[in-house]
Amino acid sequence: MTDIAAILREIHETVGRSADRGRVADYIPELAEVDPGRFGMSVVLADGSEHSVGDAAVPFSIQSVSKVFALALALGRLGDRLWSRVGREPSGLAFNSILQLEHERGIPRNPFINAGAIVVTDAVLAGHAPREYLGELLRFIRAAAEDDGIHIDDSVARSETETGHRNFALAHFLRAHGNLENPPELTLGAYFHQCAVEMTCTQLARAGRFLMAAPGMPRMVSADRVRRINALMMTCGHYDGSGDFAYRVGLPGKSGVGGGILVIAPGRAAIAVWSPGLNAQGNSKLGTEAVELLARRTGWSVFG
Amino acid sequence: MTDIAAILREIHETVGRSADRGRVADYIPELAEVDPGRFGMSVVLADGSEHSVGDAAVPFSIQSVSKVFALALALGRLGDRLWSRVGREPSGLAFNSILQLEHERGIPRNPFINAGAIVVTDAVLAGHAPREYLGELLRFIRAAAEDDGIHIDDSVARSETETGHRNFALAHFLRAHGNLENPPELTLGAYFHQCAVEMTCTQLARAGRFLMAAPGMPRMVSADRVRRINALMMTCGHYDGSGDFAYRVGLPGKSGVGGGILVIAPGRAAIAVWSPGLNAQGNSKLGTEAVELLARRTGWSVFG
Amino acid sequence: MTDIAAILREIHETVGRSADRGRVADYIPELAEVDPGRFGMSVVLADGSEHSVGDAAVPFSIQSVSKVFALALALGRLGDRLWSRVGREPSGLAFNSILQLEHERGIPRNPFINAGAIVVTDAVLAGHAPREYLGELLRFIRAAAEDDGIHIDDSVARSETETGHRNFALAHFLRAHGNLENPPELTLGAYFHQCAVEMTCTQLARAGRFLMAAPGMPRMVSADRVRRINALMMTCGHYDGSGDFAYRVGLPGKSGVGGGILVIAPGRAAIAVWSPGLNAQGNSKLGTEAVELLARRTGWSVFG
Amino acid sequence: MTDIAAILREIHETVGRSADRGRVADYIPELAEVDPGRFGMSVVLADGSEHSVGDAAVPFSIQSVSKVFALALALGRLGDRLWSRVGREPSGLAFNSILQLEHERGIPRNPFINAGAIVVTDAVLAGHAPREYLGELLRFIRAAAEDDGIHIDDSVARSETETGHRNFALAHFLRAHGNLENPPELTLGAYFHQCAVEMTCTQLARAGRFLMAAPGMPRMVSADRVRRINALMMTCGHYDGSGDFAYRVGLPGKSGVGGGILVIAPGRAAIAVWSPGLNAQGNSKLGTEAVELLARRTGWSVFG
Repeated sequence: MTDIAAILREIHETVGRSADRGRVADYIPELAEVDPGRFGMSVVLADGSEHSVGDAAVPFSIQSVSKVFALALALGRLGDRLWSRVGREPSGLAFNSILQLEHERGIPRNPFINAGAIVVTDAVLAGHAPREYLGELLRFIRAAAEDDGIHIDDSVARSETETGHRNFALAHFLRAHGNLENPPELTLGAYFHQCAVEMTCTQLARAGRFLMAAPGMPRMVSADRVRRINALMMTCGHYDGSGDFAYRVGLPGKSGVGGGILVIAPGRAAIAVWSPGLNAQGNSKLGTEAVELLARRTGWSVFG
Repeated sequence: MTDIAAILREIHETVGRSADRGRVADYIPELAEVDPGRFGMSVVLADGSEHSVGDAAVPFSIQSVSKVFALALALGRLGDRLWSRVGREPSGLAFNSILQLEHERGIPRNPFINAGAIVVTDAVLAGHAPREYLGELLRFIRAAAEDDGIHIDDSVARSETETGHRNFALAHFLRAHGNLENPPELTLGAYFHQCAVEMTCTQLARAGRFLMAAPGMPRMVSADRVRRINALMMTCGHYDGSGDFAYRVGLPGKSGVGGGILVIAPGRAAIAVWSPGLNAQGNSKLGTEAVELLARRTGWSVFG
Repeated sequence: MTDIAAILREIHETVGRSADRGRVADYIPELAEVDPGRFGMSVVLADGSEHSVGDAAVPFSIQSVSKVFALALALGRLGDRLWSRVGREPSGLAFNSILQLEHERGIPRNPFINAGAIVVTDAVLAGHAPREYLGELLRFIRAAAEDDGIHIDDSVARSETETGHRNFALAHFLRAHGNLENPPELTLGAYFHQCAVEMTCTQLARAGRFLMAAPGMPRMVSADRVRRINALMMTCGHYDGSGDFAYRVGLPGKSGVGGGILVIAPGRAAIAVWSPGLNAQGNSKLGTEAVELLARRTGWSVFG
Repeated sequence: MTDIAAILREIHETVGRSADRGRVADYIPELAEVDPGRFGMSVVLADGSEHSVGDAAVPFSIQSVSKVFALALALGRLGDRLWSRVGREPSGLAFNSILQLEHERGIPRNPFINAGAIVVTDAVLAGHAPREYLGELLRFIRAAAEDDGIHIDDSVARSETETGHRNFALAHFLRAHGNLENPPELTLGAYFHQCAVEMTCTQLARAGRFLMAAPGMPRMVSADRVRRINALMMTCGHYDGSGDFAYRVGLPGKSGVGGGILVIAPGRAAIAVWSPGLNAQGNSKLGTEAVELLARRTGWSVFG
């Protein structure tokens, strides 16, 4: 039998010895101030038991991990109509690339690159006020995590509004191609706040349980949708490092520039890891190494 | 309990009713002559039992499915040194794109796009005669399938040599970037013959058993390599339709322009399907639909 | 001796018989409403004599032709420092492409594509209010044309502000790359008003006299700068149709999406032509044909 | 009156003092061996007088300058039909880029980038043996220069055949797109020999007289074609440095990787300059500076 607690201790020790912790995102002051020495990890097993290590109770900005919850919400609301506005293929380019958008006439390649996530948020907004959308998203995440304490850090959202010129460029470009229904300011206002959701590893792992598709876990979307969201996390969840993550870890996951990663072992576990230093592809360096070690020790890779 | 035989019968009937069978590849005469009405499928389960339907005993040109066996051979021979010459990321571009090569200075994004597969073949050649390499590859495939009747169709290989201008362009381009060790003619000679391996669905499913990673199955590479090859098949196995295949089927697979697909259900089954008509991404249209239905009926998706 | 009046009559008749007048720009209502049947042309010779035909006294929106005046102003103000922020090479891509910007890290290829022109305007703004910049630009144009009646059409500028999503995307993208000093709204406000300058062919030809570099003509910038502006008009003045314009006409020119073109025959003439229908490259179709015929009849091509 | 001899002496002295002579092309041994200290320049005026300085009598490999003569030959043979296979726009990319070819489906942007020049050679070949084509090309150049001593350096041509992998890639790519009529080996054989024509500055300046379009000069093509070839040299003659050359020099010119440049002052002079060191765009560094100085001293810029 797998002793998760022991494995988590081993991981904690191993990453603790790591000299190269990657580079903390510095494009907004709030993220740059985070202590690069932080590391936390939480695992919820299919039997409901929870195991944590390190700074698992310290809240961090989930950033792009929020795209998973927004996508689940959007698929519930729009169903397959969503796919007329965004694709399902890996991008082969950096996460905030505008090249691809121009090449493919305003249809982002997948819902996890920034342009695609902006379209998803825009689609769910659908004329409502950002406040309503954000309320609904928070309700979804809180229900999934069974924790009403989860909230949005307004100062992070405001910072992004001031410095997010590339996202503004993407939004205007989408609008120019007729693939943005709301004014760029409105959609981006909602998007920046969505990215500013703050959670701990424990909360995030709990919020990811619905993607485990195990009996007794919260059921937020249909089994079919769970599979499909996991498939997208596998092929597109780590920007231009998705192939490498699949190769090394073998589990679907979604990373955020705040250093968090949500990883799913279908039928077995929901995992959240946090370490603020990023690798060259913009994914948590120690976080990736931690789940790689976890997958090796547990044999949870979906690939055999 | 899953009744595979019944599921295969249902699949056979379903695809038999399909009006749109896709478009047979016509860039070489030998492939263009294949009857678009053909359909065959074979499944080998973890218990060793085999189940087939339709034209499962008719040989076809496996084309790019051969890249899986060449990669397994190359990893056995070179180990991780291979990754200095080829990446592990989805390409985000059509399978024979030269754009990416120029952008990334001669390092193909993964071993399953043509440029990457040419590099893999070139790496295994390593100064040996194509004949030796092809002998070794055939021995590998025959051992995996436990079938000495598997052979190469020389006329298909010759046709490709005459018409494969884009592959010649790729090879010269790789050479110009210092990422081809052998003369383009030599490497491509080996590559075109490798793609011209002829197999039936039954043979192909058997040859894929080693990727199932189940007890009692032939063991051709280490368990670690099996997982990694499956991961690459999941993220890169269907060119620019890889994301869609993962989304719809949820299993690692590798397609060929001859209409064949090898699909692995880790721990459960090796599957081969063949239908010559291709979809817009160059993957077998009915073949994809067949494994999608199979995955749905069996619940074999790795994503929950 | 060349009888310009007779040549202009011939041109007027020839274009009058043209069945295909191209397509009027329709992305803002004000431009779309222009009568596609309009055609005007004015020539100012080195001796100061002026010759006009057709609708040469009807004002039109000069749009991108304004980039010539803005560049002259910017070179006067910043000198060669300008070239650290914008290049001098033809773009090889459509006029509003964002691809190139990403590829070259925020340095537009030349001052006549939209991104480059936005940088030029931003550089001249340099912290001043758009109103001041526009006042200075109008003074420059009025002095060059010796006509104080030239003004800006506010309704056109407002329309662009509302629909110019691609230009907003470019500006935010430039800002994200650190190549925009002012807030996007401010620079674009100035830019949209600059493009909304309204002139007649007669006024525009007069305003272009300083680029003729002939004795007795207004001298707005140094002889050296005149040559360089003309060089840029030759290689970059017609977006992705610049090579074709040089090939067919053999004179430096700058076109605008309103259907106007300013053409210079160095030492000989300043020419303005206007016909609202555009060709596939976004340049005035009949306008191009008219100056092609003019160059042929007069032998003014700089190429022999 | 302009004292060309004095200007050439000044130029010779100026470039003699230059510390940075650029970098000699080293991709084939024959070019790499050339003494980087060489500098020669020849000018033929409209009155037929000839003026030279430095190593103007030392033969060098004209390389891409040959594209001008091949284009003149091709236009004479095929006329405007040539333009269905090659464009007339600056490329906006490096001279041997394959990106553009893929983007525009096998139609090179202009006849002076490598892909375009290969198509031009292929079009003139038209089923004839390379030997016949090369004989015709040499006859053209010898007639233009009135010098039967001009020949091809076979060893340079052979070297390129062995190392020209990028050109082989381009040729196969063109073939794959149906824009190469002859086998790649055949067309490239002719192309590599065409590039290996050897000339002195004096010979090259004489060979360029027909582009001067002055009375008494050799007439090799119609006046109309002269203008158009000059136009193409202006917009596309220096690869991705064409805009800069037009900006700094203001004259049509065509450079070669051997360090030679042919420059035309329409109606006034044909100029050949040679200095083997290249700048970052692959054009002769001192050669460019020399003609820039010449244009400034003579006022020959076509731009006023």
